[in-house]
Amino acid sequence: MGFDGKRVVADLEELRRLTGDENGAQRVAWTPMWLKAREWFQAKGRALGLEHHLDAAGNSWTTLRGDSDRVLILGGHLDSVPNGGWLDGCLGVLASFEVMRGLMEEYGGRPPVTIRVVDWADEEGARFGRSLFGSSAFAGTHSIAADRGRTDREGVRLEDVLAGCGVMVEEIGAASLEREHAAAYLELHIEQGPVLERLGLPLGVVMGTKGVERHAITFYGQEAHSGSTPMGVRRDALAAAAKLALEIRPIAMKHPDAVATMGSVKTFPGIVTAVVGRCEATLDMRDLDAGVLAQMLAEARAASERFAAEEGCTVEWSRIWSIEPIPFDAGLVGMCEEAIVEVAGVCPRLPSGPLHDAAEVMRLGIPTVMMFCQSLNGLSHNKAEDTRVEHLVMAVEAFGGLARRAAGWVAG
Amino acid sequence: MGFDGKRVVADLEELRRLTGDENGAQRVAWTPMWLKAREWFQAKGRALGLEHHLDAAGNSWTTLRGDSDRVLILGGHLDSVPNGGWLDGCLGVLASFEVMRGLMEEYGGRPPVTIRVVDWADEEGARFGRSLFGSSAFAGTHSIAADRGRTDREGVRLEDVLAGCGVMVEEIGAASLEREHAAAYLELHIEQGPVLERLGLPLGVVMGTKGVERHAITFYGQEAHSGSTPMGVRRDALAAAAKLALEIRPIAMKHPDAVATMGSVKTFPGIVTAVVGRCEATLDMRDLDAGVLAQMLAEARAASERFAAEEGCTVEWSRIWSIEPIPFDAGLVGMCEEAIVEVAGVCPRLPSGPLHDAAEVMRLGIPTVMMFCQSLNGLSHNKAEDTRVEHLVMAVEAFGGLARRAAGWVAG
Repeated sequence: MGFDGKRVVADLEELRRLTGDENGAQRVAWTPMWLKAREWFQAKGRALGLEHHLDAAGNSWTTLRGDSDRVLILGGHLDSVPNGGWLDGCLGVLASFEVMRGLMEEYGGRPPVTIRVVDWADEEGARFGRSLFGSSAFAGTHSIAADRGRTDREGVRLEDVLAGCGVMVEEIGAASLEREHAAAYLELHIEQGPVLERLGLPLGVVMGTKGVERHAITFYGQEAHSGSTPMGVRRDALAAAAKLALEIRPIAMKHPDAVATMGSVKTFPGIVTAVVGRCEATLDMRDLDAGVLAQMLAEARAASERFAAEEGCTVEWSRIWSIEPIPFDAGLVGMCEEAIVEVAGVCPRLPSGPLHDAAEVMRLGIPTVMMFCQSLNGLSHNKAEDTRVEHLVMAVEAFGGLARRAAGWVAG
Repeated sequence: MGFDGKRVVADLEELRRLTGDENGAQRVAWTPMWLKAREWFQAKGRALGLEHHLDAAGNSWTTLRGDSDRVLILGGHLDSVPNGGWLDGCLGVLASFEVMRGLMEEYGGRPPVTIRVVDWADEEGARFGRSLFGSSAFAGTHSIAADRGRTDREGVRLEDVLAGCGVMVEEIGAASLEREHAAAYLELHIEQGPVLERLGLPLGVVMGTKGVERHAITFYGQEAHSGSTPMGVRRDALAAAAKLALEIRPIAMKHPDAVATMGSVKTFPGIVTAVVGRCEATLDMRDLDAGVLAQMLAEARAASERFAAEEGCTVEWSRIWSIEPIPFDAGLVGMCEEAIVEVAGVCPRLPSGPLHDAAEVMRLGIPTVMMFCQSLNGLSHNKAEDTRVEHLVMAVEAFGGLARRAAGWVAG
């Protein structure tokens, strides 16, 4: 009885051997290695006599029928980035499977509610630049028109690659049929950040995924000769951008969980002998509170205009992408806290900076929560990604406790 | 009698029609358009019955024999950057020719000293990246080994292109033969900066060319996820570089003529969703005083190390190129001031930020001075490069006055 974390660790190690190499995990969605990982996983379900099918978007569903049609979904994703880690995404799938197995045993083969494990298709978007592919089809937030035009670096079309995996791009919206009777969604994931490690704690409950404001900012000054242009008459676009790169930090640090990042700076003409005439920068700001995020954005804009004026420059903003914060379900957050306290004694509350499939599900109004497990050195998307085995074992136990509570709530 | 500035302006306009198009001057060295410009110019010398020859590096010499073998050299360069201006380089050549003509007339065909006009080969280095080609061969500061290996963007070898113009790369050092009896060198050039325009003055004497310290600076931090890495634990290489981009300004502004420029910043991985793990920047610092330049460099280095430490980063410096300041000859500077005051009433003293062929000549110990003529909006290397006609006329008159004084000094 119970949930066997060591079995999950053994499964993860087997998957690593099967689908990784010396550079890390190679389970990029829609490639033979990913299909191999999925086949390996589906065989586990068959061995337990469970139903399995792929939906119209390529999401993989393993179903354990219960007394009620109401469905508790547990999930993750088997796909990885190229040269990825051994935990990101697949910990969620394999822990979900173990928890389903444990509940199946606990309830003598028939739990009070139907339990399904989903392996979302192409969470990473590593090859075609469209992350959360399968979960957004499930949620109805995909765009067939946009997806049809996508190509990989070699110019291979997403549409053709999907067809090779049995997925017709016009039909992916039918994945929404899987929502029927869906009553809750739970996902276990590694943190991919340093917070739990710094707290010295193995597990935390995720309060939601942060909203994101992602912008391209261009400062226009005057290109000028580096030797003949006195300092006092320059209109240096880099200087304005440098001020903003530093100012976004106090703007974010007023709020406990907010982050602001200037990840790219490009200078034009970008030569050693010319004052920068144009500087293109990117800004990525995130917070769990929509009001905080809006305030940060307004402050960054105002600062950029002040710096542009100080430097005799102008500035233009262009939104690349944005998403509202998505807070998880309060009831499930409470159950997750109880389950973690039971195993680890204490449960910190964390926001999620990265997006996850869970956010797509929560946007539909299906009560959702995520549990985070500590990451060593905050690393992920990298073969150095790692978590202590004892923390993985605790994670599976706590996730099982959460699923048991959620199943009871769904049944009731 | 005298020096006819309007004739020089007419010549410049004719040259523009002959060798420019709607995008500007197209006299890139070693191209048919450059050879056409040189042939057009050489015909002017032939019409006056003057000697002409090309030296081993392709510098074009037009000689007026005088009573003494001692030589006063006047010069400039006919080559331009692609889409260049109508004045940069060729004003010097055509004004020199007019001054030689005027002195020839003044002295009844035989001045007290020999006068030569040089059109230096490939001052700009626009095609092969080697500026001051001809003057450095004259000065003996060239490197045949380096020049032999140079190619243009299409992979065409400099060596082959030179051969097509009758210049053998092994023999360019023989251009040093032209130094014989060289007693002084004078050059008129547009300022290529905004200083004279801001002073409201047409002409200035150049005190020398600034020394240059040109460095590549790399900050190493830690690449991290923009969403999951709290602000307080980041090691942001861009933040360290941004602090330096701002700090080089007060470092330079302590000195009246110093400049410091961060012209290029590159971020790695350089994506919107990652804290910058590595930031590569360039720094170009210039001053006329070697001690000031050394102090600026030391202060910038110390600042970079302080900022790296503050941001949890490390920093590495790599020298790209450097050159000592080259002060011009004090006696000729005095004569240049007199000549300018005679024409314009007042003469500001300026440093030259850009390098010029004159610096190569002065490095040999041949007394040298340059005169600058106002540039509109400080623009050059661009079809928008321009100077008021009345200023060009004053420049030719003042340059003639300088040459007359220098000839007297060389003779004495």
